[in-house]
Amino acid sequence: MQRKCLRESDCPVARTLDVVGDWWTLMIVRDAFIGIRRFSDFQRSLGLAKNVLSARLAKLVEDGIFETAPASDGSAYQEYVLTEKGRSLITVIVALRQWGERHMYGDGELDNQMVDRENAEPVCELELLSADGRKLSANDVMVRKL
Amino acid sequence: MQRKCLRESDCPVARTLDVVGDWWTLMIVRDAFIGIRRFSDFQRSLGLAKNVLSARLAKLVEDGIFETAPASDGSAYQEYVLTEKGRSLITVIVALRQWGERHMYGDGELDNQMVDRENAEPVCELELLSADGRKLSANDVMVRKL
Repeated sequence: MQRKCLRESDCPVARTLDVVGDWWTLMIVRDAFIGIRRFSDFQRSLGLAKNVLSARLAKLVEDGIFETAPASDGSAYQEYVLTEKGRSLITVIVALRQWGERHMYGDGELDNQMVDRENAEPVCELELLSADGRKLSANDVMVRKL
Repeated sequence: MQRKCLRESDCPVARTLDVVGDWWTLMIVRDAFIGIRRFSDFQRSLGLAKNVLSARLAKLVEDGIFETAPASDGSAYQEYVLTEKGRSLITVIVALRQWGERHMYGDGELDNQMVDRENAEPVCELELLSADGRKLSANDVMVRKL
């Protein structure tokens, strides 16, 4: 299967996976959400070779997920900053995180949580809701042509 | 970077990506949510070679996302059915879908929508909420050690 057909798919899930459908893309985005902005810091966090990380970041800039900016401290470093399009991946990252919290840890093994900065309380579970506010499961929804 | 370190990571996003961090995994899960259950139907939908799809489905069964079941129509076919763990990926699929709807289509290009079966209305956008109900953005949250 060629990846090109994902980008041209009628399905929004497929088009999104064309851009973020590799584990390393979402790991780079995750790192950006926790405050990483510099090449060397992404490299340290992800353990990728320079040439590999460089190609991946270039692809993310090309796809409009990141933009480059002068270093915030006035040094000569270039920084990689999430665009609005990139920042709106927070829902994807949180959905992955909450699924992992529920399914990928043994009792007492999870040692971190996502909290609201204002009151340091854990964030709510994401919920799929109907227009009139009912909680929906996978069986309650369908995709239809417009 | 070895994938093994994702599975043993402290980060729930990383552990999840160890299981679903390839575009094809989430495309198979997407197909299951729209009702596909048989090998030949996954193959037709995704355009994968038999041996490749076979290995991928076996991995998803091993990871507890799918289970195999006798054909629902009494025929000799085996079906692949999402487990509860698999069905709870609906939030990930919807988050990917909603991001794609917003960022991957030109005006008037999107020709389908996810609706609630009960009233055929579009589902709500997933929202990240604080414990006291405030809508949160990426800047409003942080990950902390327990």
